[in-house]
Amino acid sequence: MLPELKDLKTFRDLLADATGPDRAAAKAAEERNGQLTKPPGALGRLEELAIWYAGWRGDARPRIDAPQVIVFAGNHGVTAQGVSAFPPEVTEQMVLNFRRGGAAINQLAKAAGAKMDVHALDLDKPTADFTQGPAMGEDEFLAALRAGWQAVDPKADLLVVGEMGIGNTTPAAAIACALFGGAAADWTGRGTGVDDAGLANKTRVVAEGVAMHGGNGDGLEILRRLGGREIAAMAGAIAAARILRIPVILDGFICSAAAACLAHSAAGSLDHAIAGHQSAESAHGAVLARLGMQPLLALGLRLGEGSGAALAINILKSAVACHSGMATFAEAGVSDA
Amino acid sequence: MLPELKDLKTFRDLLADATGPDRAAAKAAEERNGQLTKPPGALGRLEELAIWYAGWRGDARPRIDAPQVIVFAGNHGVTAQGVSAFPPEVTEQMVLNFRRGGAAINQLAKAAGAKMDVHALDLDKPTADFTQGPAMGEDEFLAALRAGWQAVDPKADLLVVGEMGIGNTTPAAAIACALFGGAAADWTGRGTGVDDAGLANKTRVVAEGVAMHGGNGDGLEILRRLGGREIAAMAGAIAAARILRIPVILDGFICSAAAACLAHSAAGSLDHAIAGHQSAESAHGAVLARLGMQPLLALGLRLGEGSGAALAINILKSAVACHSGMATFAEAGVSDA
Repeated sequence: MLPELKDLKTFRDLLADATGPDRAAAKAAEERNGQLTKPPGALGRLEELAIWYAGWRGDARPRIDAPQVIVFAGNHGVTAQGVSAFPPEVTEQMVLNFRRGGAAINQLAKAAGAKMDVHALDLDKPTADFTQGPAMGEDEFLAALRAGWQAVDPKADLLVVGEMGIGNTTPAAAIACALFGGAAADWTGRGTGVDDAGLANKTRVVAEGVAMHGGNGDGLEILRRLGGREIAAMAGAIAAARILRIPVILDGFICSAAAACLAHSAAGSLDHAIAGHQSAESAHGAVLARLGMQPLLALGLRLGEGSGAALAINILKSAVACHSGMATFAEAGVSDA
Repeated sequence: MLPELKDLKTFRDLLADATGPDRAAAKAAEERNGQLTKPPGALGRLEELAIWYAGWRGDARPRIDAPQVIVFAGNHGVTAQGVSAFPPEVTEQMVLNFRRGGAAINQLAKAAGAKMDVHALDLDKPTADFTQGPAMGEDEFLAALRAGWQAVDPKADLLVVGEMGIGNTTPAAAIACALFGGAAADWTGRGTGVDDAGLANKTRVVAEGVAMHGGNGDGLEILRRLGGREIAAMAGAIAAARILRIPVILDGFICSAAAACLAHSAAGSLDHAIAGHQSAESAHGAVLARLGMQPLLALGLRLGEGSGAALAINILKSAVACHSGMATFAEAGVSDA
């Protein structure tokens, strides 16, 4: 059961106190893995994925039957600074596209056998421009975290969170820079496709935001000051999944920035998460490296929406299907090496 | 319709004369891709995969509904040289495991929505030890090619071929060395897991085979002299798919060695093929580089059976689903950049 998220302190406490995976289930899964009809290690990363999943689900021979994809949408005051190649009304247009089934994530969720939910968060009230002050007040921030927290289906057995928000590679870059240090240019990329002048402007905006808000508190406070509603909602959902022991596949740059705020706030917050896909957005690889994660895929996507993570669902499903469905040497009467 | 394979000359001629993809369909798919609701290029490799697939199927908005996985099994006289960590009877035991649904490939084919066929090729008559003479006579070789040729379902819309054959990384290494040059050690790896002494012995065997048979004719003659029945059958199936315009996802080291024999015999033989997964078998990356292919996945598998390619089926399905199922900017009423 997921406790109610009555204030930010509750969120911090629940995250810090969350228990780890079921070690006995993971150990039993490891033993089973060693008996399956294949040479030792021959399924490569599929083997560690299956054992990791078994531990989090507390089941040495698990199944994945109910993946959930949640797309959160938000608008950003910082778009007034001209940081995106697309106009802000596209956020709402794309929400309609998600609801009608016309976007990439609709097709990818369907191909993965996942149900998909869309949550549009106060699109008519963009967050504040973080070069002028904090993106969100504390109540707004809590509401966004809670939107993510409550969006997770407790019956889901795998979670992907994605986002839509014109301009949101800018807050993601600012968050990464504030959390990990370095220059704004190290974390700022072309997003949906800004040109050289646009990139220079975006880098300036990131630098200004980090100068104003960086060094103020932990990852959650950074997220409140530099993030956006859909970014905070992703963090809320990933945290809820941590409490519910629902494994998570992280998506691209923006999702990883949201996740990084949790890890900064409480060590172990992302032990239930893996990286699905390394985005073509230039700084994503660096964020994943800081999180100690190696992505399952690297196919050059840079779309958001949860697309790269959704594409990885079938990899994890396949890993678990091999683990739980294969015969052992003894069952199959196959000679061991 | 697939012509009958009456002799080796027919095979060579059909392969050399095979027509290419439907350029008009590929062009129409490229145009459609530019209109879909995403920033240009934001689906990365998924976009080129969908366009490539559309060209081969002659349909600008294709579907993948009927993937076929075929596993061929063969036994190898060269196992008498002690090249494998497993005894040769495991080939037949694993064929039974495939038929009962207990192997990794059964689970992976199911997770990909593919039908799976198994063909055991004269397991009680291993091919000749290639350090003593050609692995197959011309009639035996033709029969193996034909087994693959006839195994392809003309109604399939995607093909994966895999193999089982204790000892078969040794012929694959010998084929790669004979086709591409270099030292035997460059192409010889640990297979299912031989130790250092085993690897040294295996390298010697490969070197002896290449010294005896290398430089004799084209890729098909190399395949006859150094290959095995399941390797020839994979080549036959890949060639049949080329004629039938069924796109192919190549599997690991042994499958790629079979494919390389076709490419050596006739340029363009693999235009309908992509690499699914880069195996942990050490020389596989070098074979793919020689074929000019970049694998979709690299997850450390080294199992064969078609496992890496089967894992990639859902990637291609997802690419095609996005391409054919997404809304255009005009349909969705989304503002373009």
